[in-house]
Amino acid sequence: MRIVIVGGVAAGMSAAARARRHDESAEIVVLERGPEVSFANCGLPYHVSGEIADADALLLHTPASLRAALNLDVRCGHEVSAIEPDGRTVTVVSVAGADTLSYDALVLTPGASALRPPLPGLDSDRVSTLRTVADAVGLRARVDDGARRAVVLGAGYIGLEAAEAFHHAGLEVDVVEMAAHVLPPLERELAHLLDAELRRLGIRVHAGIAAERIEPGAEEDVVVLADGSRVPADVIVLSVGVRPDTAFAVDAGLAHERGAIVVDDRGRTSIPGIWAAGDATVSVDAVTGARRPIALAGPANRAGRLIADDIFGHGAGRPIPTGLGTAVVRVGSLTAAMTGANRATLDGAGIAHHTLHLHPNQHAGYFPGASPVHLIVHVAADDSRILGAQAVGAEGVDKRIDVFATAIRAGLTAMDLIDLDLAYSPPYGQAKDAVNLTGMVAENVAEGRLRLWYAADLDAVAASSLILDVRTPAEFASGHIPGALNIAHTELRARIDEVHAAAAGRPVRVLCAAGVRANIAHRILVGNGLDSASLSGGIQTLRHWYGAEIDRILTPDTTTEGARA
Amino acid sequence: MRIVIVGGVAAGMSAAARARRHDESAEIVVLERGPEVSFANCGLPYHVSGEIADADALLLHTPASLRAALNLDVRCGHEVSAIEPDGRTVTVVSVAGADTLSYDALVLTPGASALRPPLPGLDSDRVSTLRTVADAVGLRARVDDGARRAVVLGAGYIGLEAAEAFHHAGLEVDVVEMAAHVLPPLERELAHLLDAELRRLGIRVHAGIAAERIEPGAEEDVVVLADGSRVPADVIVLSVGVRPDTAFAVDAGLAHERGAIVVDDRGRTSIPGIWAAGDATVSVDAVTGARRPIALAGPANRAGRLIADDIFGHGAGRPIPTGLGTAVVRVGSLTAAMTGANRATLDGAGIAHHTLHLHPNQHAGYFPGASPVHLIVHVAADDSRILGAQAVGAEGVDKRIDVFATAIRAGLTAMDLIDLDLAYSPPYGQAKDAVNLTGMVAENVAEGRLRLWYAADLDAVAASSLILDVRTPAEFASGHIPGALNIAHTELRARIDEVHAAAAGRPVRVLCAAGVRANIAHRILVGNGLDSASLSGGIQTLRHWYGAEIDRILTPDTTTEGARA
Repeated sequence: MRIVIVGGVAAGMSAAARARRHDESAEIVVLERGPEVSFANCGLPYHVSGEIADADALLLHTPASLRAALNLDVRCGHEVSAIEPDGRTVTVVSVAGADTLSYDALVLTPGASALRPPLPGLDSDRVSTLRTVADAVGLRARVDDGARRAVVLGAGYIGLEAAEAFHHAGLEVDVVEMAAHVLPPLERELAHLLDAELRRLGIRVHAGIAAERIEPGAEEDVVVLADGSRVPADVIVLSVGVRPDTAFAVDAGLAHERGAIVVDDRGRTSIPGIWAAGDATVSVDAVTGARRPIALAGPANRAGRLIADDIFGHGAGRPIPTGLGTAVVRVGSLTAAMTGANRATLDGAGIAHHTLHLHPNQHAGYFPGASPVHLIVHVAADDSRILGAQAVGAEGVDKRIDVFATAIRAGLTAMDLIDLDLAYSPPYGQAKDAVNLTGMVAENVAEGRLRLWYAADLDAVAASSLILDVRTPAEFASGHIPGALNIAHTELRARIDEVHAAAAGRPVRVLCAAGVRANIAHRILVGNGLDSASLSGGIQTLRHWYGAEIDRILTPDTTTEGARA
Repeated sequence: MRIVIVGGVAAGMSAAARARRHDESAEIVVLERGPEVSFANCGLPYHVSGEIADADALLLHTPASLRAALNLDVRCGHEVSAIEPDGRTVTVVSVAGADTLSYDALVLTPGASALRPPLPGLDSDRVSTLRTVADAVGLRARVDDGARRAVVLGAGYIGLEAAEAFHHAGLEVDVVEMAAHVLPPLERELAHLLDAELRRLGIRVHAGIAAERIEPGAEEDVVVLADGSRVPADVIVLSVGVRPDTAFAVDAGLAHERGAIVVDDRGRTSIPGIWAAGDATVSVDAVTGARRPIALAGPANRAGRLIADDIFGHGAGRPIPTGLGTAVVRVGSLTAAMTGANRATLDGAGIAHHTLHLHPNQHAGYFPGASPVHLIVHVAADDSRILGAQAVGAEGVDKRIDVFATAIRAGLTAMDLIDLDLAYSPPYGQAKDAVNLTGMVAENVAEGRLRLWYAADLDAVAASSLILDVRTPAEFASGHIPGALNIAHTELRARIDEVHAAAAGRPVRVLCAAGVRANIAHRILVGNGLDSASLSGGIQTLRHWYGAEIDRILTPDTTTEGARA
């Protein structure tokens, strides 16, 4: 029994290690095109930053250590150029020339390579990707050689990590992102928090604009943006996406979608005897059922392991899980994390949902160091299943997203979140944790006790409704929506006649700082016969939604009378 | 409609707030015996420590603020002395005398009071409990007045928090715990880690011994232990447990078990029109079905909320959840957390299980600051459902326990943990997270690819088996089990004949530092026809299990030959 594995990083090494656990005598050959196997690709930015000083720390294993521990035959610098499925052989090219290797089972985990857009000047030697240990070592060398200005093209996960790494290393940094905001999978109202954090660090963000060309120079290159602005750079990182590295597999006739190998839930390709996993394959989105590659280490490891199970006939019970795309990234003092579908994905798939915005503290508010977890959760309109969750904050973000990821995988409804018995003491959480609170709000919405309105609809709401701001007068004076009526929620019962008078038959749209007081006020308004809805996430979410524009929207005008015009 | 709530802290206040959300016009009366409502009882130790400088921060609400926000009628200093269910009235005693109050719905959330064992000298005025704001303020005053030595009787959650608080405030601290180790619900092998941390802080731990009496003195009291040792103290905290404060309810004929009010899954007591929740009630253990009070804030809040739903006829869909007892405590630089059943509970309930010990890092090992999460998970022998999880470590402990608590509540099996798509990047986790790894080990055990042996069985194993230590010779030399054969796992295939010869027909029991290499070795041994099992958690768990005794068990003898005798 010979298993040949093409690609020796996440999915491939997981398959190899698992295969050995099944069979002490199998021959397991790993063919890796690059110079290293099993390296820590997620750790590369932290070598650039200097946090991981020694690049050797990124090399988790060597061919020798894998031979000793797992009796694997790992061959670096070996690229598979062709597959011949009928004869069950692959053509392998190395410095020694081309050779043919037969297999009983073939596992394709070749990964993906960086997308290279048709950008003039992209072949400048100041441009690098950040995909390999050599890339990281090269970028670190530029830092050590005195590079002062870095430009990062693309503000996805790797782009943000690269930007942060250069900043950490003391460089001036510009980030260019064609999409409307950094980290495009993150919702706009959370991405604006990252944007502000990047600016606080001194990193310049150019969002919603494309790089047009790179002008190589003797002293430095210049990145020219679509608006003509010119950004000088000693070092440029290209991180605008990846594409599956599968030409050899496509040539062999394996079914694929835009180059991503199609596999079933055992990792089997369209050709018997050939399995595939990782960045080079199509994954099924757990929430929408959409098919797309997911370039994340965890799912790749899981799929590699399950493929080994299937090869040895142990795979019947456990399909490869569908993808939630759970991910986390550190940006300065903030953490951003997400799991499941975002608003754009849900709208694209036509899945009716409502969205909850919460800003609970990561631990008891009276315990020193309390800070908010800004949380967005999408809940299905029909059955209240949890569709996706995202969060940004200084602490406790990854914990909450992991709980949401577990809940979504387990098929819990948003209401089930109320019942989760999470670990509480003042340094760690709240007796009603952020996750529990999400469930409570969702239940109130599902059962009709709470109706929400959204920051995106501000203009339409302002035109048709009385906006009632139930914060204190001092909070109101610090900035409010023009035309809003201010009655603190604690005075609302006594002053309900004022609301009736000001509304004059119009709907009342209530808001407070974060949503808690407005939700209380909503019940009072409904109890008094008014058409009411509460702003999801309150003024905080309004600020996050409008970002830099917010100062044009809110006014510090302090007279409630005048505001009532 | 008048709802009367007896007790205005966690469960009671949750019921009151929720009731108002259901009905803007209901009369809601909260009768609180003490001087405060809705105070942060979990925050009390942190006022003693000085971390929460202002005791007012612990007062979350006042009767006036609750009147304003929720139109509640909160009466502090009002104790219910009797219930007259037939007439639906309660007798209320206050400084104004006794009065009668009628109710349509009565909610009993009186909580629990400190157990006072029959200990001579316990009425010394240097002895205090830590249950109320007044207790915390009084203890802090003793600290401010120059108290130098504190003794804490009972090392449960509150006892440990009190001990840490006094240490934080600069006092010398002794902790006395009658059970065999601190934090008795924690497994022995994890409790020893807390024990070591307490000693590192300079806190003296007296475990497995009772206090016999307190000798009050003019300058200081002396706590005398059962072995005659004398521990001087300026201040003594009594935290040996609680008992339900339910005499008035028992007198009224409500069904109870040892004073804890019996309720159904809607919070209804045995008498129509009366509900109960919180520390004063019997809870059903989610794992074993056992019935016992659970004195935790989260479950109390949830039950209070659901009782309000039931009173207003909205409770049909959601029963009060059974109890997992999820809890977390900070001890110095460590966090200890748990959810579900522990070994003693499972043994007591006769639930067959195996136990997994893992020591994975909280985040990528190559990222600076990696530290282990010492994790214990109990898995049902029959269907691999997760029965309980506990962890101790410097970082990432509460996150993993929250994921386990979610998984148990959702009914996931240990194998389902493999598929959880948790947030990974190097500062936050590992591509195979501690939770995923637990699932992988559980699957290997369930499917027979891994067989475990346990630290508790060391003597029997040593007497009957060859102990094979697959760590490196240098690790072996630093301390090993006498008689063990040392062959590094990387040499095992080449030296398998030595194992056959040394075993001489006996079983082979393999171990390494944490279990990873031994599990690889186990497959090699089985593949070579040997009867093998791997030490759960490796030498690390062996050390944790035997605690201070370990130096008598391990030898630094470096000759493998000699060890083979």
